[in-house]
Amino acid sequence: MQAYVAEEWPIATCLLGVPPIGRDGIAVQDAPAETWDAIFEDVAAEGFRLAELTDGLIRPADLEPSRLQELVEVAGDHGVGIPAVHVQRSSVVMPGREEENLAYAHRSIDAAAEMGATVYSTGLHRPFTEAQRRALWFWTAQGPVDPDDAELRDRAVRSIRELGAHAASVGLIVSLELYEDTYLGTAASAVRFVEEVGMENVGLNPDVGNLVRLHRPVEDWREVYAMTLPYANYWHLKNYARDEAADGSWQTALPTTLDAGVIDYRWAVREAVALGYRGVLTCEHYGGDSLAVCGRAQEYLRRILPRAAHVDTRLAPTGAERN
Amino acid sequence: MQAYVAEEWPIATCLLGVPPIGRDGIAVQDAPAETWDAIFEDVAAEGFRLAELTDGLIRPADLEPSRLQELVEVAGDHGVGIPAVHVQRSSVVMPGREEENLAYAHRSIDAAAEMGATVYSTGLHRPFTEAQRRALWFWTAQGPVDPDDAELRDRAVRSIRELGAHAASVGLIVSLELYEDTYLGTAASAVRFVEEVGMENVGLNPDVGNLVRLHRPVEDWREVYAMTLPYANYWHLKNYARDEAADGSWQTALPTTLDAGVIDYRWAVREAVALGYRGVLTCEHYGGDSLAVCGRAQEYLRRILPRAAHVDTRLAPTGAERN
Amino acid sequence: MQAYVAEEWPIATCLLGVPPIGRDGIAVQDAPAETWDAIFEDVAAEGFRLAELTDGLIRPADLEPSRLQELVEVAGDHGVGIPAVHVQRSSVVMPGREEENLAYAHRSIDAAAEMGATVYSTGLHRPFTEAQRRALWFWTAQGPVDPDDAELRDRAVRSIRELGAHAASVGLIVSLELYEDTYLGTAASAVRFVEEVGMENVGLNPDVGNLVRLHRPVEDWREVYAMTLPYANYWHLKNYARDEAADGSWQTALPTTLDAGVIDYRWAVREAVALGYRGVLTCEHYGGDSLAVCGRAQEYLRRILPRAAHVDTRLAPTGAERN
Repeated sequence: MQAYVAEEWPIATCLLGVPPIGRDGIAVQDAPAETWDAIFEDVAAEGFRLAELTDGLIRPADLEPSRLQELVEVAGDHGVGIPAVHVQRSSVVMPGREEENLAYAHRSIDAAAEMGATVYSTGLHRPFTEAQRRALWFWTAQGPVDPDDAELRDRAVRSIRELGAHAASVGLIVSLELYEDTYLGTAASAVRFVEEVGMENVGLNPDVGNLVRLHRPVEDWREVYAMTLPYANYWHLKNYARDEAADGSWQTALPTTLDAGVIDYRWAVREAVALGYRGVLTCEHYGGDSLAVCGRAQEYLRRILPRAAHVDTRLAPTGAERN
Repeated sequence: MQAYVAEEWPIATCLLGVPPIGRDGIAVQDAPAETWDAIFEDVAAEGFRLAELTDGLIRPADLEPSRLQELVEVAGDHGVGIPAVHVQRSSVVMPGREEENLAYAHRSIDAAAEMGATVYSTGLHRPFTEAQRRALWFWTAQGPVDPDDAELRDRAVRSIRELGAHAASVGLIVSLELYEDTYLGTAASAVRFVEEVGMENVGLNPDVGNLVRLHRPVEDWREVYAMTLPYANYWHLKNYARDEAADGSWQTALPTTLDAGVIDYRWAVREAVALGYRGVLTCEHYGGDSLAVCGRAQEYLRRILPRAAHVDTRLAPTGAERN
Repeated sequence: MQAYVAEEWPIATCLLGVPPIGRDGIAVQDAPAETWDAIFEDVAAEGFRLAELTDGLIRPADLEPSRLQELVEVAGDHGVGIPAVHVQRSSVVMPGREEENLAYAHRSIDAAAEMGATVYSTGLHRPFTEAQRRALWFWTAQGPVDPDDAELRDRAVRSIRELGAHAASVGLIVSLELYEDTYLGTAASAVRFVEEVGMENVGLNPDVGNLVRLHRPVEDWREVYAMTLPYANYWHLKNYARDEAADGSWQTALPTTLDAGVIDYRWAVREAVALGYRGVLTCEHYGGDSLAVCGRAQEYLRRILPRAAHVDTRLAPTGAERN
């Protein structure tokens, strides 16, 4: 519903590069405000005014209200806002944890609202398998697979609908991340899922980087974006350099900068804006200095956004903007 | 014949990243001036004052004179000149299309001259095979192969000579791109070819990036440059990160920035300048945001060129400059 | 013993990208001062005030005193100091060359002291095998292997101790580089080695980039740093993008920028500083424009160092600083 001036477009960093256990052996979740302060000082030093809070680092649902307040204040002291809470590997259809994970999601939504976030970001992926934990990059090993089970899929739709209603009641949107081998694992499956949920405030997070990095044949990234961007209400942006043997005997993918990987983000961002996307752009990067690479990603996005927004003004259908 | 101040060295971007069909479904070839305007606005925004026109995007030979004029004006409105027209995958010895492609080349030269370009860039590679079209990167699959046929090769030499004469008559040079499996596919073969053509205004485009990206054993890039740079009159610069199994069982290559790939462009540019190269430097990049990566390539080249030109002044043999 | 202001932290470039033979066919070792001048002009142009001298380019031990003086002056004319001499592939336990290499090491230490360097950097790796010379990247082929021979290992310890004593007498530290298949080939082996040497001025160069690039299963880079950083007194920093088949059938590694490879240098530098590291940071890069990539590495390090030093001030144990 908003129109941003390109320079003010909300661009966030992920916090994937922050070790969840500090040098002192204390989990960031339980750490004193000084530890949090150092994290957001880093974030600000790389030029970010927004950071996505991932529950791999801090679970807002498990913080006391006073600590939640402290977290927001510490970030704010560095001029950093938290627009989104990302809850992952906690699927509402994870065998044996359906109720527990759904309850955790509800509490996370409340905590996100408490923090002033506007996005509840999640997915249907589950904790790593042993093979994934042993791998250099978890995406090269086989993870859990959502079964071809209409009833279970339907349960997932219903649970997300329940979360969507809760989120709407506290002013949040819900965004569902593309992730292989889940009911959100292909463009078609993800679109069908979100259409079945059928709620104004529930959309997709077209994190196509999750797919182009796989060591298997993958969908054409441009087609995945073309199908999913119309449903996007939040967005993880990351890129991979990818190569494949012509005979299909191997695939390799290496995390790289946003401009230089296989995905053309000039095209993707322009397409998104033209389709009415006005949501947060959250930079992600695995490996190396994640925050530094995200910093370069923001610089890149700020460089191309004015032109993307400009083209939009001239070419995109007006109205019908999402989120 | 010219000597450039390093800061003014002509550096162009390719237009490989521009989708040949617009969002409106109209081919860029047939699009209104507004579409062209948006392309050159992008080019200028990335800091380029020159762009190579590739016929994969726009075929100047197939534009009405008034449209050709319009194209030059639209680019000029953004301060962008077009020094070179690149006609590719239209070999003059493509079986069954020899006459047609030769005629198209003649018309392209006329159009290039009409546009004020000074370089007619081409090669002997042909349209993609089905395998190349299916591949993530076309260079990983087998493309067409020029046969070991002295008569056909001779015909290629004669046709290029014919184009060279035409080009000379309208003030253009002709540059022939290194490309695997063609008569310009190895350093030795390319040098022999251009020597057989034997014309002042016909030289090589030592696009060694075309070779180092192949999934097969490749010539040493430094040796290819050493052999071909003395014949260079135009130059595509792009880089790839390359790795090989020590036992030769696989090779991989990933498009990367000009400074960080396997080719040392500090060495190559310095060597070229020392050998008298004064031609256009055209940045290329496949995948990702091609134009953005080319923008970084220009910045890199502008940083190393003053030193390259400086060394040249002190060390290179004077006179004998080419093109 | 020093505490640096972050902005003044000593950051050096390697000279790995400089061709050891000039365009004129003269080895840099034997070249006139003009050739050296051009090298350090390049180094300064990329923003460096320090360069490590590797004996792959110039062997200070084999230079006349007047030439040694000239080298230091030429570098100094461009504001470039030489804090470290790196002598490599000249193991003191290389079969048949033990005495010769030890003598060369002694002469190199004297030359390094003569030049005003403070670091004598070396290792136990030997000249390339034929397979390494043929490979695109030498680290993908099998190199020489230090035998599992307690007596020989002991001889290595004794020889390094001898060099350590010599170095101490002329005010130098000795740093031993992690390198696969040598007695410094794993974190545990390197730590045990340096502890057996047991000298104040002999430490490790935790060049973990040497390990993460191998086409074989490798130790976790974070664990290698955790074990070796407490012993570090000099440091080569370089990074690689790495991928592995989940089934272990292949590994690939590509040289990349310091921020974007598999190693998180934000974490590693912060950890090092917190552990009291105050030594030189020497940027390395193989392939492409090594010096340009090192230039970007320095910019990256200068960006993260203030925060690293800051965290150190607040969190690190005081005192007990090394070198």
